[in-house]
Amino acid sequence: MYPIQNDCNIYISGHKRTSLSEETSLIQHFAKNNGISLDYYSNSDFINKFQNDIANLIGFKEALFFPTGTMAQQILLKVNADKTKNRNFGIHEKSHIYAFEDNAYKHLHRLKEILVGQPNKPYLVEDVKNISEKISTLVIDIPYRELGGIPIPWDELEKIKDYCKQNNILLHADGARLWECASYYKKSYKEICKGLDSIYVSLYKGIGGMAGCFLCGNSSTIKEAKKWKKRHGGKLFQETILIASSAYQFDKRLREMSLYYKKAQEIYNKCSDFKELTFYPEKPLINMFHVHMKITVEEAILMREYFKNKKGIWLFNNVFPSQLKDNKSYFEIYVGDILLDKTISEVNTIFELIAKYIKPLLSE
Amino acid sequence: MYPIQNDCNIYISGHKRTSLSEETSLIQHFAKNNGISLDYYSNSDFINKFQNDIANLIGFKEALFFPTGTMAQQILLKVNADKTKNRNFGIHEKSHIYAFEDNAYKHLHRLKEILVGQPNKPYLVEDVKNISEKISTLVIDIPYRELGGIPIPWDELEKIKDYCKQNNILLHADGARLWECASYYKKSYKEICKGLDSIYVSLYKGIGGMAGCFLCGNSSTIKEAKKWKKRHGGKLFQETILIASSAYQFDKRLREMSLYYKKAQEIYNKCSDFKELTFYPEKPLINMFHVHMKITVEEAILMREYFKNKKGIWLFNNVFPSQLKDNKSYFEIYVGDILLDKTISEVNTIFELIAKYIKPLLSE
Repeated sequence: MYPIQNDCNIYISGHKRTSLSEETSLIQHFAKNNGISLDYYSNSDFINKFQNDIANLIGFKEALFFPTGTMAQQILLKVNADKTKNRNFGIHEKSHIYAFEDNAYKHLHRLKEILVGQPNKPYLVEDVKNISEKISTLVIDIPYRELGGIPIPWDELEKIKDYCKQNNILLHADGARLWECASYYKKSYKEICKGLDSIYVSLYKGIGGMAGCFLCGNSSTIKEAKKWKKRHGGKLFQETILIASSAYQFDKRLREMSLYYKKAQEIYNKCSDFKELTFYPEKPLINMFHVHMKITVEEAILMREYFKNKKGIWLFNNVFPSQLKDNKSYFEIYVGDILLDKTISEVNTIFELIAKYIKPLLSE
Repeated sequence: MYPIQNDCNIYISGHKRTSLSEETSLIQHFAKNNGISLDYYSNSDFINKFQNDIANLIGFKEALFFPTGTMAQQILLKVNADKTKNRNFGIHEKSHIYAFEDNAYKHLHRLKEILVGQPNKPYLVEDVKNISEKISTLVIDIPYRELGGIPIPWDELEKIKDYCKQNNILLHADGARLWECASYYKKSYKEICKGLDSIYVSLYKGIGGMAGCFLCGNSSTIKEAKKWKKRHGGKLFQETILIASSAYQFDKRLREMSLYYKKAQEIYNKCSDFKELTFYPEKPLINMFHVHMKITVEEAILMREYFKNKKGIWLFNNVFPSQLKDNKSYFEIYVGDILLDKTISEVNTIFELIAKYIKPLLSE
């Protein structure tokens, strides 16, 4: 059960919380200015155009809306499995598909994961070469969120693309946070995606929409994916509102990504000196990072409640066990427009409060 | 591919077409008046309350939002199959699950349908008694849309409920148009649903929302269904907007259902005398009926284009082959607020135009 977090005044991670009233007001403005009609089972000029725009932006033939990435990605794996007559796919154990989707690909499509690489770092081309079984698809994350937002280094990414091509492995990217990676790679989205067979990109997360994503690929892949979208129950009566909730702010968010990135660097430079807190990666590679703590997950949840109730500060949605030496838990910070609009002094004060809360727990 | 129907001035079936701007404006008003927050993976006071309200209204323990009925109903069948260790379910061949979902229940859950009754009428308790194989679940439609909106007669419905209970068959209703049936049965929704183990009800169709539905059942069923909702990729980041698009007009629509019903009766009494058109059922039982024609499906599609281009009238979204003697095709009329606000003379004129268009085709 996720926490209801409406009562706080101060948030840290992600973009500013808005109400349904504020959000519909923004969408209404966009809809009126652009004369947007409602679709009938996804058929609409507005949706077609936005799908095409995104596909063009990242260099794919077609894009197809899905209500969730969970649906889009298992369908992509199923389509590839049917195409290659091979149910195996390679994946990193920190990938969302493997770690957080309750084995949906097994339950619904009888696919089988082959874990690749090591748990605590992105894989390199050598890891891919070491896969012992024949796989239909290799899934790479751009970037690895669960590792603190670490992308595969460019050289390795290029080598993986080449290796997959030479070995008839379909290369799919979980690009839930692709938009966040341009500053790291210093490449266009098209260059980053060149050589991938398919990618899933999110319309909420960094973009700030209400729900949904695009699966991008070639025409035959998207044609098959459409059939499975219907079978999964993903073909909504009207998709327009969800897509519009992303479209109205899409360009602005992409423009701001480099600002979020710079702010993350600045926060690292000025706010990472509390000995109770360990930032990971040591220096943020994109506009997100993890904050590791020497308190347990349970203690961290109590801390969250304390900050919510006593200070009106919402610290994080999720907290996980830490894999770092001497640390026990961590939470994620996504630098979005919340932190962009805070001064470094304000941000520092929040970390200081957290450090102060933790300190006495460690000396007990 | 569904037609894009934005260019017409006159519609017949369903509720009035609105733009995204108009619709978000109405939702915004509702959201502001009710102080509605956005959810985080479905967790919100607003969603919880609306789900509870609907569950209470129709007499179930719990209700769970799904983005589509296709997802909700195959999941219900899967949950029941696991519970009873039996993959067979009984269904009428005109039910949506069997007729229009591309065998999703087979592809994704390896379930097996056992067809019950006769193709062109709702089934009676005798049909259910004649099922030769053991089934986990019996699916009944309340009402049968594809038969022209015909509900199972009350006595038979009660007998089917009793029979299923006595024979340990879980009884599930496709209640996509349950809201339309109160005037026919002259019963409350609770009375209609009493004795069902589960039901799916729509939030768009008669209600006019943008997408989605509720699956209602007991706590253990809904608990299992939640797991499968996530696996299917049905757990949207934010569901609020879709649910609000229905909630803001829900009470009004339920109140108007009896007016739609009366209007359907009136249209039948005053507009069904064109010999080129055959209304089915002979007298509408709910606020919908079929109009059968002696022209083919292909001719009917040409007619739709003609009316769209020459008269700005959108006749129908879909047209199907007719099962009636001497007829070749039919389309559906759902009496919603479009026809409610038209005079009988206006409605008659439209049928007259259709009859006039068809007449010369028949004498060729």
